[in-house]
Amino acid sequence: MKVYELGERGLIAAIHRLQKTPPRGYLGIGDDAAVLPPSGDGWLASSDMLVEGVHFRSEWVNPGHLGEKAVAVNLSDIAAMGGVPRGLLTSIGLPRDTQVDWVEAFYRGMAKALDEYGVVLLGGDTVGSPGPLIISVTVLGQVEGGAPVLRRGAKPGDRLVVTGRLGASRAGLALLQDGVRWPGRNVTERSVLTAHLMPKARVDAGLRLRPLAHAMTDISDGLVAELVELVQFGGIGARIFEEQLPVDGATAEVARRYRQDPRQWVYYGGEDYELLAAVPPSRLEEARERLSECQVSLTEVGVVTDTPGLTAVRPDGKEEPLNERGAFDHFQLVRVSSGG
Amino acid sequence: MKVYELGERGLIAAIHRLQKTPPRGYLGIGDDAAVLPPSGDGWLASSDMLVEGVHFRSEWVNPGHLGEKAVAVNLSDIAAMGGVPRGLLTSIGLPRDTQVDWVEAFYRGMAKALDEYGVVLLGGDTVGSPGPLIISVTVLGQVEGGAPVLRRGAKPGDRLVVTGRLGASRAGLALLQDGVRWPGRNVTERSVLTAHLMPKARVDAGLRLRPLAHAMTDISDGLVAELVELVQFGGIGARIFEEQLPVDGATAEVARRYRQDPRQWVYYGGEDYELLAAVPPSRLEEARERLSECQVSLTEVGVVTDTPGLTAVRPDGKEEPLNERGAFDHFQLVRVSSGG
Repeated sequence: MKVYELGERGLIAAIHRLQKTPPRGYLGIGDDAAVLPPSGDGWLASSDMLVEGVHFRSEWVNPGHLGEKAVAVNLSDIAAMGGVPRGLLTSIGLPRDTQVDWVEAFYRGMAKALDEYGVVLLGGDTVGSPGPLIISVTVLGQVEGGAPVLRRGAKPGDRLVVTGRLGASRAGLALLQDGVRWPGRNVTERSVLTAHLMPKARVDAGLRLRPLAHAMTDISDGLVAELVELVQFGGIGARIFEEQLPVDGATAEVARRYRQDPRQWVYYGGEDYELLAAVPPSRLEEARERLSECQVSLTEVGVVTDTPGLTAVRPDGKEEPLNERGAFDHFQLVRVSSGG
Repeated sequence: MKVYELGERGLIAAIHRLQKTPPRGYLGIGDDAAVLPPSGDGWLASSDMLVEGVHFRSEWVNPGHLGEKAVAVNLSDIAAMGGVPRGLLTSIGLPRDTQVDWVEAFYRGMAKALDEYGVVLLGGDTVGSPGPLIISVTVLGQVEGGAPVLRRGAKPGDRLVVTGRLGASRAGLALLQDGVRWPGRNVTERSVLTAHLMPKARVDAGLRLRPLAHAMTDISDGLVAELVELVQFGGIGARIFEEQLPVDGATAEVARRYRQDPRQWVYYGGEDYELLAAVPPSRLEEARERLSECQVSLTEVGVVTDTPGLTAVRPDGKEEPLNERGAFDHFQLVRVSSGG
């Protein structure tokens, strides 16, 4: 059955049935607005829009994975503030001949991810689209008993650390562009396809880094773009030690296959959804220990400098400026540039 | 200049410049997520998506008005809960050849409306769209010192009241479909075009009705669709007195011109963004007085019955069932059905 046969109200009812009972004090889907209870903590809010043909391609990603990813990329912004995600609103614009099965699988994927992160589906909107499929997600979160970690605040001498691995999502995209589909043909392919199609929001890691980091952001547009955000305040810069970039074996293998430099994928690839934080050297060991408690690796990739500009220390020790303008731009790249 | 020439970051910077300094405790655009201060009151959240070719046509509406309307229709959901809107997130998907001037005028229209309602622009997302222009808005509001008014809660005997006039937005759409453009050629045309292109959210009225109403919703999809929402709980129904429907002279005049029955526009037209509330008879006079303080009329249009179903009492006294399935459906009507 297609969505135009089911109609808007039928579709909303189907989505409604997938909703779990919200916790006490919350009111979810079904009224003019959702209700969230009073709280002694402040709230965080962030929105993302995903457009078919720009952020994902339906041929490349199954609806369940897309639902999971739509949640994760949005929650990543809350993680980057050191917050706990609480509630989510999803609006979706559907071509009228979209299969109802597709929509249900998408919402089931969202429900699965929401469950995993303990987040309530609060509401949203369901409309027809004469063009591509469009997903717009807004997440509400909280910072428990403290202030959020902003992008502003890094100090010269702070160590730049990243969670997990970088470049893997871009390696997964390279496979998808080459016709490889989930789950891939071996462990390597599956590993980088997972990074691209089913990224995780680093909520636990963000919570643990919050009391230690001077500044933090998530890596959604490549490391360089995020470094630019981090050093835009107060006349500081960053030096990156290329040998220390956490490129894993699977990413390196896929890069070799396509004769690409995996460092370029780290710098400009985008969609890793790892965290980048500036941590004072005295807290570095503590940060690493805290993250090991939630099975997330933390890698020191650079240092905050007292002069503006981004430089990379090459493996041969040569220091070169990083191209700050190479970053990902959704208006320049109207061709499909990413997978969700 | 077109948006793809300016680029995503340039566009965000331009939007950023239109942002006012947020109030104390708020952090707006510029970080991974916006921050809202702790509060003793609960929060409300609602999202709407507007798609070009479905919800508006760029040839029919100027970007400033569209920005104002995008805010108002979203704030209307907060008004319908008896809440005060506080903050807004806007995501926008732009065809790459969109003029930067257009985008700036749109955001200026939003800023004007946000100012009018005392709401902070908290953030959002800016992406390219290979299809139509897409606007997704999420509003956050609060209920000051009390509980919100839900759709559920109407009791048999409650009077059904509506704010303002109904059907005027649909009359404005009829003119637009006929080639008339803002500001129209006379006072009548201007009046109904205003209703369609620049609706207001009934925030003040909602606040004043909150302590008096058993149930409330806003009239976004026509009176019948909203009545269906209101009476879906607890085996109740509604009887509407057609002679009392607040159809103003301008709406009646435009209906006559197109040989339409303005009552059909009230029932199924949509986009009035007035409030529908169920008020016990003992509080009716107080409700009317409270609304006159904010220059909003309140009209008693019907009564809640103790049996399910919707009926209309015709001017000749005959009672007939209302067609509950005539309601507006964004999937059925993929042709342009409304103006913002």
